[in-house]
Amino acid sequence: MYQINLQLQSGAPQTLTEQLYQYLKESLIKGTFKTHEKLPSKRNLAQGLQCSINTVQAAYNQLADEGYLQTREKSGYYVADLGGILKLEPKQSKEPDRGQSEESYRYNFSPQGVDHQRFPFSLWRRLSHQVITSEDTELLSISDPKGIPELRSSIARYLRSSRGVHCTDQQIIISSGTEFLMQLLIQLLSENTVYAIENPGYEKLNLLFKSNRVHYVSLPLDEHGIEVASLQASGADVLSITPSHQFPTGRIMPVTRRLQLLQWANEKSGRYILEDDYDSEFRYGGKPIPSLQGLDGQGKVIYLGAFSKSLSPALRISYMVLPEVLMEHYESDLSFYFCPVPLIEQKILHTFIERGHFERHLNRMRNLYRQKRELLVTCISSLLPFAEITGDSAGLHLLLHIHNGMKEEELIRRANQAQVQVYGLSRYYSQLPEKKGTASILLGFATVEMDEIPKAVSLLQKAWSD
Amino acid sequence: MYQINLQLQSGAPQTLTEQLYQYLKESLIKGTFKTHEKLPSKRNLAQGLQCSINTVQAAYNQLADEGYLQTREKSGYYVADLGGILKLEPKQSKEPDRGQSEESYRYNFSPQGVDHQRFPFSLWRRLSHQVITSEDTELLSISDPKGIPELRSSIARYLRSSRGVHCTDQQIIISSGTEFLMQLLIQLLSENTVYAIENPGYEKLNLLFKSNRVHYVSLPLDEHGIEVASLQASGADVLSITPSHQFPTGRIMPVTRRLQLLQWANEKSGRYILEDDYDSEFRYGGKPIPSLQGLDGQGKVIYLGAFSKSLSPALRISYMVLPEVLMEHYESDLSFYFCPVPLIEQKILHTFIERGHFERHLNRMRNLYRQKRELLVTCISSLLPFAEITGDSAGLHLLLHIHNGMKEEELIRRANQAQVQVYGLSRYYSQLPEKKGTASILLGFATVEMDEIPKAVSLLQKAWSD
Repeated sequence: MYQINLQLQSGAPQTLTEQLYQYLKESLIKGTFKTHEKLPSKRNLAQGLQCSINTVQAAYNQLADEGYLQTREKSGYYVADLGGILKLEPKQSKEPDRGQSEESYRYNFSPQGVDHQRFPFSLWRRLSHQVITSEDTELLSISDPKGIPELRSSIARYLRSSRGVHCTDQQIIISSGTEFLMQLLIQLLSENTVYAIENPGYEKLNLLFKSNRVHYVSLPLDEHGIEVASLQASGADVLSITPSHQFPTGRIMPVTRRLQLLQWANEKSGRYILEDDYDSEFRYGGKPIPSLQGLDGQGKVIYLGAFSKSLSPALRISYMVLPEVLMEHYESDLSFYFCPVPLIEQKILHTFIERGHFERHLNRMRNLYRQKRELLVTCISSLLPFAEITGDSAGLHLLLHIHNGMKEEELIRRANQAQVQVYGLSRYYSQLPEKKGTASILLGFATVEMDEIPKAVSLLQKAWSD
Repeated sequence: MYQINLQLQSGAPQTLTEQLYQYLKESLIKGTFKTHEKLPSKRNLAQGLQCSINTVQAAYNQLADEGYLQTREKSGYYVADLGGILKLEPKQSKEPDRGQSEESYRYNFSPQGVDHQRFPFSLWRRLSHQVITSEDTELLSISDPKGIPELRSSIARYLRSSRGVHCTDQQIIISSGTEFLMQLLIQLLSENTVYAIENPGYEKLNLLFKSNRVHYVSLPLDEHGIEVASLQASGADVLSITPSHQFPTGRIMPVTRRLQLLQWANEKSGRYILEDDYDSEFRYGGKPIPSLQGLDGQGKVIYLGAFSKSLSPALRISYMVLPEVLMEHYESDLSFYFCPVPLIEQKILHTFIERGHFERHLNRMRNLYRQKRELLVTCISSLLPFAEITGDSAGLHLLLHIHNGMKEEELIRRANQAQVQVYGLSRYYSQLPEKKGTASILLGFATVEMDEIPKAVSLLQKAWSD
C-alpha cells in the first residue's frame, strides 16, 4: 500500500480536509495509487495524520463524488479505474500577445464615439439610484425577450413622432448593437437570402455577413445612393442602406430613389430593405430627414436604430422595427433569445425618455455638434484650401476630398506624424473601385473638443502642405 | 397652378414652417401637384399665407433636401419627378396579439431565476453611484470587444481559484448570455462542425442550433452522462455538456467519464468539449466539483459560465474561456463584435468581485439555497411518499420521479389546478426516448420563499393523491 506521506498544517489558509483532498487527488492523478487499490480506513488514516475521522471522511467523500474513488458497502474506499489516461502532458501555455490596438494620437477625428463632456452623468446616476430598488420585484427576472414593454413603448412613440416611422410597440425588438439585430435577421430570413450592402458603407457589415456565412454583394453608389440598375442585376433579396445620411459619404437619399427602392422591394416576395438610421437625430441645415420606413405601406422595410450616437456607444442599446409578418416569424422561432440589455439599464433608459430628458439631451447635443461642425468647416475652409467638403450638414462626421496630389495613405501617414488621427475613405470599401478617385478623408468631430479643432486642423495644414 | 389652401396657425404646437412643410408634403404625396410644375415664388406664397419669406424658404429647402422639390438656379422650386409611384396603398395595419405568456400560478417551482429577497440592492446602488462619474473618461467609449480588462481579470482569478480552470485573463470573453457566446462559437468553428447535445438537456440548445442552421445530434445519457459509444458513433465534432451538475438530471459526471470524453476530443483535430458550468457554485453536500477544463491539457475544452444563477439572470452577463488557438482565430476574425454588456455594468461587477462582495454573496446564497433544498426534501419525504429524488445535492433544482401511476401531463395539470407550477422532464428532451420511463418532474427552488415550500408541497400532495 502506498504510504500517505503528508503533514497536515493546522492554521494554514486551507482547511485540513482541503489539504488532504488536494494531496490525495494529486497522488491519484500522478498514478501513485493502483487501480482498485483499497485506501486506508478512515480510522487508520485519521490516526496516522492526527486529525479527526470527519476530516478523512469529508475528503474521501468529495473524491468519491468526483469519481476518483469508489465506495463498497461496509468495506471502504477503492481507487476508481482511471484507465491510465490521466497522465496527459499539458501543453506549454503561453501568454498570447495582446491584440495590436491602434496607436493613439493627440487628436483623434474618430467617426465613432460621442462628446464626453456633456453626458448627463449625475442625472443617469440619480435615475439608476431610483431604479435599483428591492421594491421592484421584477428587477431580477427575465422578462420579455424583445425588451421590457415600457421601453419598447417609449421607443415606438419616439420613432413615430420624431422619425415618421409607422409602428406599434409590438413591432419593436431591443438588443445590444446593430450586429446582434443583424444576426437575428439572418436567422429570421430565408437561408438562401442574398444581401446587398453599400460600397462604401459601414465597415462591419461585410465582416458580419462573412462570419455568418451568408451570401452578399456590395453595390456601387451614385450621387443618390445605391444604383437601381446594379441592384436589379445583383440578384439581391435584402438591401441594407443608410438613406437619411449615407455612411460614410454623408449624402441624403432623395425621395425619388427611395420610391424606386421600395418599388424594387415590392416586386418580389422575400425582398426587404434594411434602413439603418444610425445618426439621423443630428441634422443642422433643416429638420431631420423622415425615415424611409414611413413611406412604406407594404411591410417591406426593417428599420434599425440605436442610442450609440444619441447617448453613448458604451450603453449598448439598439432596436429594430419589424414588419408584422416578420414579427410573427420571430415570435414563433426566435423568441428563445433573451433580450441582452440588462433590465436595470432598460428601466433607466425608459425613465430618461419618459421624463423628457432624452429630447432635451438631443437638443443640447444637436447644438453642440452643430457648433463643432461649423467650427471645423470654418477651419478647413480657411486653412485647407485644397480640401472640398461633401455630404449633408448632418451627423457626426464629414468627408473631405483632398486635391493636393497626395494619395490617401500619404495623407494619413503625414497626419499621424503630426499626432492627428484621421480615417481614409478606402477602409469603408468592401471592394475598392477600379479607378481610384480623389483621396478622401473622413473626419469625425463628436469626440474632439471645440478648442482642439483649430489646433488639429492647423496641424493638418502643415502636414498636408509641402 | 394648384391653389395652396392653407391657414397657418400661430401659437399651434407646430411651428409655421412645420405646418407649411407638412401641408406641402402631403399634397405632393397625394399627387395634387403635377411633375415639373413650378411652385409659387417664396415672396408670393409668403404674402398669400401672411408669413415671412424665411418660413416659406425653410419649408421649401427641407422638401428640396428630401428630394420632393428641385431647385433651378435663379428660377425657383419645381416638383420632382416622383414617377407616379407614390400612391402605394398602405396595408391595413393590425395590432398583433400579444404573445401567449405562460399562465402564472400562486407557487412557481421554476428552474430559472434567483431568490429575490437577498439580492444586495443597496450595495449595487452604491457601487453604481461610484462607477457613474464624469471623471471616468472611458465610460462612454467602446472598449475591448472581449470586455474590459479588469473584469476579465477578476473573472479569470475567480475561475482559477474556485473552479480549478486553467486560464489567463487573455482567454476570457464576456458576453450577455450563453446563447450569444454560442453564436460566436458557431461562427468561430468550422462550417461543417457537427454538434452533440445532451438528451435531456438545456432546452434552448436545439433551438439555437436549428436557427443557426448547423448540424447537431442529441445523445442519450447513462448514469454518468453522455454515453461514449453513442458519441463515437455520432460523427459529432463538438460536444456540449454540463458535467458538474447535469441539467436537468442533476448528476455529477465522474472523473472516469470526463477522461474518456477528453480522450475522444484528443483523437481528432477540430474536436472540442463545451463545458457549460451554469450552477456549479451551489453544492451542499461537499465542495463544488472542479471543472472538466482543469483536467484538459490540450486546449480541447471551451468553458462557459454566467452570473445568471450566482447573481441574477436579469444582469445578462456570461463569459467563456477559449483555448489559445481558438482565441487567436477569434482575434483575427470575430473581434469586430462589440462586447454587448454595458460598460457601466462591467465596472460595477468588477468592483463587486474585487471588494469581496461576490464571495460573501455566494456564501450567503449557498446557505440560503441549502436551507430551501433541505426543507423541500423534508417536505417531499414526509408528504409525497410516492416521489423519489435523484441527482446530487447541488444547484437550484431537483428532479422527482413520481411512482403513483400518473403520467407527466396529468401530474402537471393537477399541480396547475392546485395553483402550483411544476415542470415536466419531457420538455428538456430534444428527442423523446422510445420507451418512456417514470413520470419525472423538475422543481426549481430558488424563487420560492421558505414559508411557501411546505404550503406548495402540501398542495402537491392533495393534487397527486387520489
